[in-house]
Amino acid sequence: MTTSASGSADRIVVDYRISVGDSREVADAIRVEQTIEFPFDLAPEWIQETVVGRIENISGNNVTISYNPGVAGGGITQLLNVLWGNVSLFPGVRVTGLRLPDSYLADFRGPRFGIDGLRALVDAPTGPLVCTAVKPMGTDPQGLGEMAATITRAGFHIIKDDHGLADQPWARWKERTRVIAEHVNQAREQAGTNALYMPSLNVPADRIVDAAHEAKEAGAGALLVLPGVSGFDAMRMLADDDSLALPIMAHPSFLGSNVVNPDQGIDHGILFGTLMRLAGADISIFPNYGGRFSFSPAECAQIKDLCHAPLGNLARSWPSPGGGMTLDRLGELTEFYGDNVALLIGGALHRGDLATNSRAMVEALRQ
Amino acid sequence: MTTSASGSADRIVVDYRISVGDSREVADAIRVEQTIEFPFDLAPEWIQETVVGRIENISGNNVTISYNPGVAGGGITQLLNVLWGNVSLFPGVRVTGLRLPDSYLADFRGPRFGIDGLRALVDAPTGPLVCTAVKPMGTDPQGLGEMAATITRAGFHIIKDDHGLADQPWARWKERTRVIAEHVNQAREQAGTNALYMPSLNVPADRIVDAAHEAKEAGAGALLVLPGVSGFDAMRMLADDDSLALPIMAHPSFLGSNVVNPDQGIDHGILFGTLMRLAGADISIFPNYGGRFSFSPAECAQIKDLCHAPLGNLARSWPSPGGGMTLDRLGELTEFYGDNVALLIGGALHRGDLATNSRAMVEALRQ
Repeated sequence: MTTSASGSADRIVVDYRISVGDSREVADAIRVEQTIEFPFDLAPEWIQETVVGRIENISGNNVTISYNPGVAGGGITQLLNVLWGNVSLFPGVRVTGLRLPDSYLADFRGPRFGIDGLRALVDAPTGPLVCTAVKPMGTDPQGLGEMAATITRAGFHIIKDDHGLADQPWARWKERTRVIAEHVNQAREQAGTNALYMPSLNVPADRIVDAAHEAKEAGAGALLVLPGVSGFDAMRMLADDDSLALPIMAHPSFLGSNVVNPDQGIDHGILFGTLMRLAGADISIFPNYGGRFSFSPAECAQIKDLCHAPLGNLARSWPSPGGGMTLDRLGELTEFYGDNVALLIGGALHRGDLATNSRAMVEALRQ
Repeated sequence: MTTSASGSADRIVVDYRISVGDSREVADAIRVEQTIEFPFDLAPEWIQETVVGRIENISGNNVTISYNPGVAGGGITQLLNVLWGNVSLFPGVRVTGLRLPDSYLADFRGPRFGIDGLRALVDAPTGPLVCTAVKPMGTDPQGLGEMAATITRAGFHIIKDDHGLADQPWARWKERTRVIAEHVNQAREQAGTNALYMPSLNVPADRIVDAAHEAKEAGAGALLVLPGVSGFDAMRMLADDDSLALPIMAHPSFLGSNVVNPDQGIDHGILFGTLMRLAGADISIFPNYGGRFSFSPAECAQIKDLCHAPLGNLARSWPSPGGGMTLDRLGELTEFYGDNVALLIGGALHRGDLATNSRAMVEALRQ
């Protein structure tokens, strides 16, 4: 065990679990690889001491390294690079902890709405939010719009594009966004409900800002972003845009390999809780335990915990478990996640009558 | 074994290796998950037939599924989503093959320079390109600039920012880019050599286009992009920008978990060869076998092969092995990779005298 002379309160602290190789050798490799990428012995002494990461602790195969926050200067892109840049190419290394000093966190706005802001926006002072997606791909904009209207009337809080909807021949992005937004907003007024329509911004990089504004002008009330595809900082940019000021939901597309290999990658809660919050997600989707994916209850609980845990002055975010959720699991899930959860119900809503199922879901949550 | 009635020449074809679960069941899950994300039996028949992926072959744990190119409409963001969106969250699934129809590829420009264009630009009609990075982090802009000038005089083709250089207190992005570009361009003129300086565009999403233009105005001759951090389509956007028209090198930061877990993820060549080319990378960096990372010779050969293989009308790209490369491996590496390789020499250049080592490296490659 090694403990540095000075404290680490003002440093970025990362815990790693090492499953391949000698813990000390790998720790020494990581602290150099994630900073100077240069033979340690050739670096000037002040760089060795100030710029290279510092081993704070080694206990069995658990290693803690702290970094000078200056190393991660330049925003979330460089934080991701320091946290999981080259070391992502190491087999048998898993990031199991991340602690950021308040002085570093002060540069991040985080979720614009978070739990309290989104509750106010959809007039849901208590209880879980209830969310769903319009699908299946292949349905035309009118069909998706009518579906969205039905769900809006039932009292859902968020109706998003299925994340696979992009710019397909069956429903082009612009027309789809406009038609669904119109349907949702009309149904809101008629029914006195509060659904936000959330189009997917899985669009080319040079279109994403314009598309977000077009979506808002068309009547969308929130935005779905795929940070694994578009980049975490593209999401942060949209979240920070005062002229948009819309809630943002993050989808885990393309990010799975970072979490599903138990001895390599980043712990679920750090990726889907902490990093998504830093990048401005008000809501973070992940596959629920017991659905058609592989996350365990403990992994899902870690995500929930890090969506809700203190993180500088950043707002708390909504964990949003989805993937194969059914009506008969509602009680179990609200017990597991508590009230501050955005439940994402998918295809199950369509087995039988959509309107009946949607109303039953909202009704069940009210009780 | 299942073979579909119609051909798959005009479809996107993906091979998967399944290591967890029954191959047919997982294949059925994937073809639905990557398209409609909806109970198959509830989808209209035409959507089942036209939109859902089609199982083309099952042979042991190897599965081939083809997709209607319309499903991947909207550019590389949606291609990534269809290839590795939700299925990235499945344990035990590996993408081992990707074939794209020419009609789909026609929408991609790919590398602007590729092998032939970059050879012309740096006046290197034959032989490997020789590249390095200025480092270590902590060095001030003047120090990095002098280092770059020394290497330029020696005849290196590409001098990039170390990928860890972002906007640190020791060398701010703007000043660093300007000072290094000046040093490289002055040294080029004096020595009659052809180095391109390549600053790193690891900058916030709302800065990346402006930063690329500022870099060009400051005299940079190429750009380094981190698509795992900034997004593949951000790189494509920069590559396609006619007002920039600069060669682009892709760095593997944050992408490692997609390849290093043998039974899960995407094959090395598909990620670092095919996808990087589709996203406009002229040069694709990856960790060389036998260095301080874990890639095997076979994995590196696959990357080289898919950088060079026919891909519609897209130019071939440069594989760029790096990571712990030393002078005494040059012969072995040029034999392994052939002439069309961009060798990336790192810290080893600094052990002893930088000018002497740099000249020795260029001299050794000429022979």
